[in-house]
Amino acid sequence: MASESGKLWGGRFVGTVDPIMEKFNSSITYDRHLWEVDVQGSKAYSRGLEKAGLLTKAEVDEILHGLDKVAEEWAQDTFKLNPNDEDIHTANERRLKELIGETAGKLHTGRSRNDQVVTDLRLWMRQNCWTLSALLWGLIRTMVDRAEAERDILFPGYTHLQRAQPIRWSHWILSHAVALTRDSERLLEVQKRINVLPLGSGAIAGNPLGVDRELLRAELNFGAITLNSMDATSERDFVAEFLFWASLCMTHLSRMAEDLILYSTKEFSFVQLSDAYSTGSSLMPQKKNPDSLELIRSKAGRVFGREDKEAVFEVSDTMSAVLQVATGIISTLQIHPENMARALSPDMLATDLAYYLVRKGMPFRQAHEASGKAVFMAETKGVALNQLSLQELQTISPLFSGDVSHVWDYGHSVEQYAALGGTARSSVDWQISQVRALLRAQQA
Amino acid sequence: MASESGKLWGGRFVGTVDPIMEKFNSSITYDRHLWEVDVQGSKAYSRGLEKAGLLTKAEVDEILHGLDKVAEEWAQDTFKLNPNDEDIHTANERRLKELIGETAGKLHTGRSRNDQVVTDLRLWMRQNCWTLSALLWGLIRTMVDRAEAERDILFPGYTHLQRAQPIRWSHWILSHAVALTRDSERLLEVQKRINVLPLGSGAIAGNPLGVDRELLRAELNFGAITLNSMDATSERDFVAEFLFWASLCMTHLSRMAEDLILYSTKEFSFVQLSDAYSTGSSLMPQKKNPDSLELIRSKAGRVFGREDKEAVFEVSDTMSAVLQVATGIISTLQIHPENMARALSPDMLATDLAYYLVRKGMPFRQAHEASGKAVFMAETKGVALNQLSLQELQTISPLFSGDVSHVWDYGHSVEQYAALGGTARSSVDWQISQVRALLRAQQA
Amino acid sequence: MASESGKLWGGRFVGTVDPIMEKFNSSITYDRHLWEVDVQGSKAYSRGLEKAGLLTKAEVDEILHGLDKVAEEWAQDTFKLNPNDEDIHTANERRLKELIGETAGKLHTGRSRNDQVVTDLRLWMRQNCWTLSALLWGLIRTMVDRAEAERDILFPGYTHLQRAQPIRWSHWILSHAVALTRDSERLLEVQKRINVLPLGSGAIAGNPLGVDRELLRAELNFGAITLNSMDATSERDFVAEFLFWASLCMTHLSRMAEDLILYSTKEFSFVQLSDAYSTGSSLMPQKKNPDSLELIRSKAGRVFGREDKEAVFEVSDTMSAVLQVATGIISTLQIHPENMARALSPDMLATDLAYYLVRKGMPFRQAHEASGKAVFMAETKGVALNQLSLQELQTISPLFSGDVSHVWDYGHSVEQYAALGGTARSSVDWQISQVRALLRAQQA
Amino acid sequence: MASESGKLWGGRFVGTVDPIMEKFNSSITYDRHLWEVDVQGSKAYSRGLEKAGLLTKAEVDEILHGLDKVAEEWAQDTFKLNPNDEDIHTANERRLKELIGETAGKLHTGRSRNDQVVTDLRLWMRQNCWTLSALLWGLIRTMVDRAEAERDILFPGYTHLQRAQPIRWSHWILSHAVALTRDSERLLEVQKRINVLPLGSGAIAGNPLGVDRELLRAELNFGAITLNSMDATSERDFVAEFLFWASLCMTHLSRMAEDLILYSTKEFSFVQLSDAYSTGSSLMPQKKNPDSLELIRSKAGRVFGREDKEAVFEVSDTMSAVLQVATGIISTLQIHPENMARALSPDMLATDLAYYLVRKGMPFRQAHEASGKAVFMAETKGVALNQLSLQELQTISPLFSGDVSHVWDYGHSVEQYAALGGTARSSVDWQISQVRALLRAQQA
Repeated sequence: MASESGKLWGGRFVGTVDPIMEKFNSSITYDRHLWEVDVQGSKAYSRGLEKAGLLTKAEVDEILHGLDKVAEEWAQDTFKLNPNDEDIHTANERRLKELIGETAGKLHTGRSRNDQVVTDLRLWMRQNCWTLSALLWGLIRTMVDRAEAERDILFPGYTHLQRAQPIRWSHWILSHAVALTRDSERLLEVQKRINVLPLGSGAIAGNPLGVDRELLRAELNFGAITLNSMDATSERDFVAEFLFWASLCMTHLSRMAEDLILYSTKEFSFVQLSDAYSTGSSLMPQKKNPDSLELIRSKAGRVFGREDKEAVFEVSDTMSAVLQVATGIISTLQIHPENMARALSPDMLATDLAYYLVRKGMPFRQAHEASGKAVFMAETKGVALNQLSLQELQTISPLFSGDVSHVWDYGHSVEQYAALGGTARSSVDWQISQVRALLRAQQA
Repeated sequence: MASESGKLWGGRFVGTVDPIMEKFNSSITYDRHLWEVDVQGSKAYSRGLEKAGLLTKAEVDEILHGLDKVAEEWAQDTFKLNPNDEDIHTANERRLKELIGETAGKLHTGRSRNDQVVTDLRLWMRQNCWTLSALLWGLIRTMVDRAEAERDILFPGYTHLQRAQPIRWSHWILSHAVALTRDSERLLEVQKRINVLPLGSGAIAGNPLGVDRELLRAELNFGAITLNSMDATSERDFVAEFLFWASLCMTHLSRMAEDLILYSTKEFSFVQLSDAYSTGSSLMPQKKNPDSLELIRSKAGRVFGREDKEAVFEVSDTMSAVLQVATGIISTLQIHPENMARALSPDMLATDLAYYLVRKGMPFRQAHEASGKAVFMAETKGVALNQLSLQELQTISPLFSGDVSHVWDYGHSVEQYAALGGTARSSVDWQISQVRALLRAQQA
Repeated sequence: MASESGKLWGGRFVGTVDPIMEKFNSSITYDRHLWEVDVQGSKAYSRGLEKAGLLTKAEVDEILHGLDKVAEEWAQDTFKLNPNDEDIHTANERRLKELIGETAGKLHTGRSRNDQVVTDLRLWMRQNCWTLSALLWGLIRTMVDRAEAERDILFPGYTHLQRAQPIRWSHWILSHAVALTRDSERLLEVQKRINVLPLGSGAIAGNPLGVDRELLRAELNFGAITLNSMDATSERDFVAEFLFWASLCMTHLSRMAEDLILYSTKEFSFVQLSDAYSTGSSLMPQKKNPDSLELIRSKAGRVFGREDKEAVFEVSDTMSAVLQVATGIISTLQIHPENMARALSPDMLATDLAYYLVRKGMPFRQAHEASGKAVFMAETKGVALNQLSLQELQTISPLFSGDVSHVWDYGHSVEQYAALGGTARSSVDWQISQVRALLRAQQA
Repeated sequence: MASESGKLWGGRFVGTVDPIMEKFNSSITYDRHLWEVDVQGSKAYSRGLEKAGLLTKAEVDEILHGLDKVAEEWAQDTFKLNPNDEDIHTANERRLKELIGETAGKLHTGRSRNDQVVTDLRLWMRQNCWTLSALLWGLIRTMVDRAEAERDILFPGYTHLQRAQPIRWSHWILSHAVALTRDSERLLEVQKRINVLPLGSGAIAGNPLGVDRELLRAELNFGAITLNSMDATSERDFVAEFLFWASLCMTHLSRMAEDLILYSTKEFSFVQLSDAYSTGSSLMPQKKNPDSLELIRSKAGRVFGREDKEAVFEVSDTMSAVLQVATGIISTLQIHPENMARALSPDMLATDLAYYLVRKGMPFRQAHEASGKAVFMAETKGVALNQLSLQELQTISPLFSGDVSHVWDYGHSVEQYAALGGTARSSVDWQISQVRALLRAQQA
């Protein structure tokens, strides 16, 4: 008889269950994360039953005391799982019954397993999202601090991996930090939708026993209650949203990691990873690999697409580790400003050369073409762009004159980009203050 | 010479381009959707150049007039594309030059293609999301109106496709409407992040020519400006967010469609689709297929994962069609209340039977087992659950007495589920008013 | 000093490693599955080193004996992991050194970790795919046996979930069995590409020490050797192929499960799941849910997209469980032929009615329209299609005569579909023999 | 009346169809690709009907002649679509009826739309896969020819983007060519499963009119016929397989493109793309971007996951363009052997230094550590690894002697890797001959 095994739907079944099927259906290996919130949810529900007159004061006390004992066993790692404990909820109920006897059976009056599963999951994710928010803020803060300290270092900005224009190193850091502020904004929105109480929805039709859902909400400190019992027990939008959030955040961290992997190649040599975030090779003695960056990049694989509890636990752990490793990498990264400076080359100022002509009155499209001709002339002659003589430039356009020599100053170049968001010192300072203001607002 | 073909980077190239490569790189077939916002963005930028002293009043007027002419040609479908127009931006610039001459070349001073592409995309999506919001609200309103009108109809609620408990038909409608209110909330959040101006970011370093980005923001009516020029031109979070939004919304519509496909089978016969949303078979003359529902379901395939403009246009069109078709289906759906009533069976009240014992003082887990025994006894005897005699019930528990007969009233059953969110009349009314209040708040 | 911790690249590092980073990088929690094949691969490699003159006979014997001891410890579950054992390969090497001393350090001469990882993975997957093939064949055999035994039972074939035409129950079973034969064909193709030896490729450049890869291939019984050392150590096509295979196979099982879920609803009542594959509800005492079928369906979620070892272990386990559960379900499924028969209705013979007219010389498109009119007439009059009188039919077409009554026999209907692949008895018999022949060929 | 619009299920419907729904359901915009195979399939089926006695010789001739006329209109681009032509099959049937009258209605006797759709799709894909196979072979051939011509050029092999060991440039080319030979092998397997005739399966139950499917198979030159009519009309395994094939092949091309993007940066400067495969910037005059490589990489996005006709057409076009562009890139790529040589550095021979000690009798793990110490000593002293004096080396191990100087020859280094699959000249020659033999075998 299946009922002897303590299964919750014991009364009706006469066959026994295929053991592979049982294992298949069991979630205890991963949902033990939920022990604490499961106890928390049960305590709140027992108070709800008391108010509805379904438990006496004495019974509630007995249940609360028993649940505290269950929690203590988990906390001290002395809780013993039975082979029949298919999930954390069954395990805790089974243990409670062993501790306090039949009264335990009253705790589930009008509460379905679906009710319990989704309430526990929301409690757990609420807690966890706070931790992730804090880690994310820590990473952004580290990046902004670093951007502030290293504002005077210039290096090449790339598009299509080709050198494009000189920019500040801080501008690069901030481009990634700004992306992460959107992630932290989105995480707050997800948390708002996680923080809604489903308990009191029963299996499908709602709760018929006069349980006050507003009391449950207050007990568990949720921001609102769900509107429809069928929707409440079945919807997992908040899980999909969390996984999407993680996926987008990982995309951002992955892009930063990809840049850093490149910048730490021998060929670029702009930065050097701390040994604490590198590994070696079992075969090649000279190797020092940026494994931490590669792991960050590889984790960005599509976490989206799974919508179950298991994915939530796994993705939460990954995000927590990744955010900490990323913070460690950024705070220990050594940069090589002299290599950065050496990588700046005059052809990266070809756009500025076109602007020089624009300022003398030439329409931009013509100026772009004239500057392109100068680049081509320099390549053909095998010299750097700034080594073309004035006479040579004047064969391209008579608008070139002696003051063209001012174009070839990288520091001067970046200072031009003073519109908000650009790479001029004033604009980078503005970005730093804006991101800090955003952080303060989000943490409020 | 490639420059003869009018390519924007004419000056430098000496080879010709592989024609397959050119076609490969071309986006004009789908980005023509953007003609209107491209003109809008260019008009704003020309005003920015004027304020920065890079265009005279006369030049701006000439450009604005020329852009109006370009727009007129698109609106009247007389715009002629050249084979070399690789995207909408090149096409409009080429045409402007034909109309007003060299001044056209000044319009792009300090503006990169990246600047232009992302500004146009944000303008287009902002407009489009408003349309989708309106369609979504229209669908929710139709559902709520219907839920209000049909509150008195009961039918089986299912879990695992097995009959679970009697619920109101309106409760089912509202479970889907409530899910859609989350979608419209999320769409508003996405719109907030779309509504940020990137223009003035240049290729990578920002704008060096004194263009006032605050003026551009005001001209184009954006809510804010982007913080970092590198991030601004490369990030597509808002596209990923929009696609995720569509994916989640489609999941909800798909679930509703799946229920309705089932309810419209011969075996269930709860609802009948209007002929306007059905199709026949080319082979089987008697067939009437719920094709509209199947198409909704099939479109829910993972729209997520692509992150390009092409996906945005396609997914927008799909969402627009799906929301309209869904609204049409819901407003014309015919229901069969008598079949719904017939599908209610006494075993669906087994939970209520357990609650009956709970109310007499039995712990729920024992009551659940007792009710399960009653179900088993009825099955074994081959009778309906409500046909067990009082004596028979009393062999299971002495707590059963004459008043057990009240359990077998379906109307009475649903009225018990009066906790907020449940299927009782009062709770369904509360849901209707809550969803309507949400709609009003979102539309504000 | 990191070298003290026994790390393989000990000599060079001076920093210590961030512990989160270490945990992040560790794979020992899941790759312990590989202990047996890792030992197997090392034994073969030591013979390769011997032949190349890099190990003496005595050294090889020492190593082989030590490896046997390591294997014994794993088999008896006495192997003790160290906190520094980051993967199974490190763990086994560390233990070997403890057992036999410095000679252990010679085993890895010219063999890189990449070499070892991919060789082990191929060995493990080769073994595992054989097991999965056997389970898949077992399922197909069960289905074919059942199809043979129940050939005389008719029931409705559905399209778009609407009743379409009468078919044999066996025809439905075979439609799923045939799909599974493609899966087993594909699995054999994947196995062929798994069964290729990469060992001897080093980190990237190959093996410089005269190790004979043909000897290694023969020792490990691979079918071929890889062609290029860079490709050999980095490619994971065979993993992607295996995951795709699993994904497609799960799609097929999922579709079958979806049909069975529907057929086991109260409304359809065609089949009944064994209690061994059902579960109950913690709240509703009467519920018996087809959980096994739902689990099969849910597992079909996209296993594709991950390409790592972890996914391989997880997906292999899932496939093994799913195939066994599916075999159990099919072999214990109870069917209700009387309900199946009751679900056949005359309008499902509307296609046959059109063919009746075709046989009298009417073009099919006109016959389809005429039959459609008959369906409409019957619906309008509220009678079954076969209850229209001959006179009524003749108002639609004068080709109708008394022999139209033969159309209304379901058994006669299915017997018409005698072209190969159809639902006639002869055709179903042919399918059974074809699938059995395929099975025999695949197992050869 | 819907029947007036020429819809195929005209007889029964009384409502009109929502126009959005109609457009939603229409596939004509993309399935016009199928016009030729649709005519081909219809011609074969009309011969099947003739043999079954359902068409006279005269009727068949009339139909064949009419179908040739339809094909001619498509070929000459004079075919005019009606707004009601929802798909290519309806369009062709409608046109045939206009051309030859009522006899056209007989062509569809016993053939369902599902029959027709899947037969057409298989015919189209069969043709298309041959074209793709030929393009793929062309690319592989180009790569092998290039590998053969440039065998003597050495450059750094990378792991984790860090310089690892010297290898031949040809070894890199072959590592990608070998991956592509697996793709062409897989494409042949997919073609085998595409090349199976479904026609004669009807809607679901099969064909009841004595049509000889073996005749249809021979007419359309298929390799086999489908086994079960339900499976035949609904399965799309071959589409999923094709999309997976494309996805894996694109992954390989993407990896090659990623390497080349890197090798063509200013920092690496190993290769230079032909202008025919580069583009410029609308803003920065000096830019020359590897757009062709980036497009190849971006197309590798997950084509998998969609399983419809539309995806097949799109993915086929993409693959065709990508394979041609990739062939163009490889055949025009300019390499810079002098930069490649300059990028080789003594620390890349640290593995060889360890092997030097191994050959003197030191266990590999100790040799690895000793070589690591030498690397650390050189770094600390700020000299290249080969500039350590013999005395300095001997402080690490007394096994070092004068012959250690032979280690520092890059050409000598690669020649050591002579095991099959390695980077020695003989091994690269072997790879070239193996790949060529594979190509010959696949083309047979």
